[in-house]
Amino acid sequence: MTADQVSRDGAVTAGAAVLVEALGRGLPGYRIVVDPGVLGALSHDEAEWAPAGQAAAAVRARSEAEVQHVVRTCARLGAPIVPRGAGTGLSGGANAVSGCVILDLSQMNQVLEIDPDNLLAVVQPGAVNNDVKAAVAEHGLWYPPDPASAPWSTIGGNVATNAGGLCCLKYGVTRDYVLGLRAVTGGPVAYGEAVRLGRRTSKGVAGLDLVGLFVGSEGTLGVVTEATLRLRPALAGTPRTIVAAFADLVTSGQAVAQITRRGLTPAVLELLDRACLEAVEEWKHLGIEADAAALLLARVDTPGDSGAAEAGAIAATMRDAGALWVEQSTDDAEAEALFDARRLAYPALERLGPVLTEDVCVARSKVPAMLEQVSAIAARYGVQIATIAHAGDGNLHPLIITPPGDEAARTAAQAAFGELLDVAIALGGTVTGEHGVGLLKRDGMHRELDPGALVLQSAVRRTLDPLEIFNPGKG
Amino acid sequence: MTADQVSRDGAVTAGAAVLVEALGRGLPGYRIVVDPGVLGALSHDEAEWAPAGQAAAAVRARSEAEVQHVVRTCARLGAPIVPRGAGTGLSGGANAVSGCVILDLSQMNQVLEIDPDNLLAVVQPGAVNNDVKAAVAEHGLWYPPDPASAPWSTIGGNVATNAGGLCCLKYGVTRDYVLGLRAVTGGPVAYGEAVRLGRRTSKGVAGLDLVGLFVGSEGTLGVVTEATLRLRPALAGTPRTIVAAFADLVTSGQAVAQITRRGLTPAVLELLDRACLEAVEEWKHLGIEADAAALLLARVDTPGDSGAAEAGAIAATMRDAGALWVEQSTDDAEAEALFDARRLAYPALERLGPVLTEDVCVARSKVPAMLEQVSAIAARYGVQIATIAHAGDGNLHPLIITPPGDEAARTAAQAAFGELLDVAIALGGTVTGEHGVGLLKRDGMHRELDPGALVLQSAVRRTLDPLEIFNPGKG
Repeated sequence: MTADQVSRDGAVTAGAAVLVEALGRGLPGYRIVVDPGVLGALSHDEAEWAPAGQAAAAVRARSEAEVQHVVRTCARLGAPIVPRGAGTGLSGGANAVSGCVILDLSQMNQVLEIDPDNLLAVVQPGAVNNDVKAAVAEHGLWYPPDPASAPWSTIGGNVATNAGGLCCLKYGVTRDYVLGLRAVTGGPVAYGEAVRLGRRTSKGVAGLDLVGLFVGSEGTLGVVTEATLRLRPALAGTPRTIVAAFADLVTSGQAVAQITRRGLTPAVLELLDRACLEAVEEWKHLGIEADAAALLLARVDTPGDSGAAEAGAIAATMRDAGALWVEQSTDDAEAEALFDARRLAYPALERLGPVLTEDVCVARSKVPAMLEQVSAIAARYGVQIATIAHAGDGNLHPLIITPPGDEAARTAAQAAFGELLDVAIALGGTVTGEHGVGLLKRDGMHRELDPGALVLQSAVRRTLDPLEIFNPGKG
Repeated sequence: MTADQVSRDGAVTAGAAVLVEALGRGLPGYRIVVDPGVLGALSHDEAEWAPAGQAAAAVRARSEAEVQHVVRTCARLGAPIVPRGAGTGLSGGANAVSGCVILDLSQMNQVLEIDPDNLLAVVQPGAVNNDVKAAVAEHGLWYPPDPASAPWSTIGGNVATNAGGLCCLKYGVTRDYVLGLRAVTGGPVAYGEAVRLGRRTSKGVAGLDLVGLFVGSEGTLGVVTEATLRLRPALAGTPRTIVAAFADLVTSGQAVAQITRRGLTPAVLELLDRACLEAVEEWKHLGIEADAAALLLARVDTPGDSGAAEAGAIAATMRDAGALWVEQSTDDAEAEALFDARRLAYPALERLGPVLTEDVCVARSKVPAMLEQVSAIAARYGVQIATIAHAGDGNLHPLIITPPGDEAARTAAQAAFGELLDVAIALGGTVTGEHGVGLLKRDGMHRELDPGALVLQSAVRRTLDPLEIFNPGKG
């Protein structure tokens, strides 16, 4: 059965029936979902603007053996496989393609091993990021990658997108914390074969870095069934928070550039503009006064006098860059309210209408220029753009908000989206810092990357998945 | 011309003459080396035990265009290309294969750009590691990867092997510092095409991580002609050194395991055994008394009171683990003598006879067991093994030393080498932590990796180099 043989109207066609029957030969029936309502809910992530096709079925896998059965069956029948975890992605990477089997890994959610002697954990792909954090914290350990979706998103999804987050400025991204993987692959080995990639040691150079290749590959090379994660010792001491307000976005960007230039590395350096703060306050009443165009929110986790010196230097830099006011705090409650606002910004803005999420990343010195363009493009297209940013990384999330049902606004938003990608590329940046290419940034990726690099990456994909069944059309 | 058409006796055969003539059509003649003495010197790295074939010629390339010409010519004539930098490798990765063109990149040694605003540098592959460090230090910046070969080894070689060093315990390995590459590739694009991989931003997920794939690929995927390196702000303050002596190797290993278990992360945690210390002292007269079976050498670079607390905790842990004595020092001269001893250990031991270098890496908790096996295997085979180790990473370098000309000892050493690899694998470790597979660890790699992973990596290589001309038989 090819994808085209499945109708788009939601009915289970003859081809889909064959597929479901074949899946059922190696799985308990209650693992297989064909109910159109449930299938529909499993057929998209949170990228509201990305199209989703009609899936033939979904499988809620509970073991690697079940994943192997799904991959073998789909390979035999030529059906695409779309793996998914919690579906919190923002680029449509987990959206169904026509005739696919959605492979829901969220029930493979166990933390299999925590090794405090060697600072590692072995987890299943459906384990939720914050659950892993909590489990390892009981052993005095820390898993740093912290996408804003951490309360819901799974390690498998984090691995697929090479998820970032707030603390990657100082502590790196998901790829930096994946030592090994198990994956059900295809191509050069038989489809459905499980392979062990990587290692448990802190260093190792035996063979090509296939683990790094799988991280960020958005499910296009195989299905990850287990991850060995590098951990850090839990941080000691209370972090210090520095908050600064700015009269305009560009000045806040200049403060970010200046912090980098002075060699300061806060653990977190986030930007929230007035639109974000207002949306959160209106929803949650945290008591935040949005009295400025932008806030910068820095966190320093270095303990002792060095931490105090670092926080002081960051505050001074913000003042020198023209902040309206700067406050340092070690008061957990006040700081937490601001970090809550940061985490709640996306859902708060979603309440106002469909959100088209940018994820551009530019060099730190280009942050002011990028922010200037965000404002200019918003004005030019007459669209509302609220900006949150992992500013210290140069990773900006301008969020384009459209009134529900306003088609003209959607068209304008789409045009603004494309132009923001062009500006990021022209500034030497990337179209996606951490959300992944998915469906939303494929054109942008083609504009960004060297044509030769695109040819090489397509060749690698075709080699590892000659049938093109692993999440085709994504990444 | 195939490799087989070139004779192994050092004369330029008819096939080699054709190759040299073709190379000369796009290069000044003085870039091409055919003199057997010079060719011989360029035909091997420092892995004394690895075999080297007879090269047809060497080219001292000065530009990417010249590299492209060499790759096109070799692709047309079917000649292997063996890239090399300074030839300081320890696994034979830069050794000539029969009929090859040695592509010497050591003259492409420029630091092209230093960007202090964005913490990056762009360098040519022949730039020496320490020269890059010195150049960026003038801007208050730091390039951390510090293999013991840093005074001589090149960034291209460091990239090819994903070189580690002393400070990777806290600061990571070469792969963590490579943002982008230019490489002359083949396969899916035309042989000789230069492609740009990666990015200049601190984060980015557009496309597969081909940069990470090239790092550590030992020249088997193409020839790197430029690297964009991530930098850190230079460290402030004077580091603290902690030295501890142990009555036996295993106890020192227990101290290492205990340091990890207590969540302590020194910047450096090195082990030197008595044989190493004696060899250095005999050669350099640094005034080191080798009064113990092993020394542990830790460095803490955290500034201020946190640094003092960290150093104190490390010293206490060493005492608790049973050190004979522990000393803390901020006296540069004394500490530097010990770090000099660490850096000089390898050449000091080479003076005693041919050295067969292990590079096994095990989980930190397995360091005592691995050290116990090193002693047992030395006794069983009657060979001298001196051990230096990046102990904090679990990366051990047992160095097997044989008296010059003693064939029986060489045979015993070879057997001991193989058994050490087996032990590392049995302990869940890897046969190579940082030196690369080259020629010496190919069997070990095949024993270590999952058979499926080996199939996948061969398939990726064949895809990117279907003619198998990029450093064939290595890695």
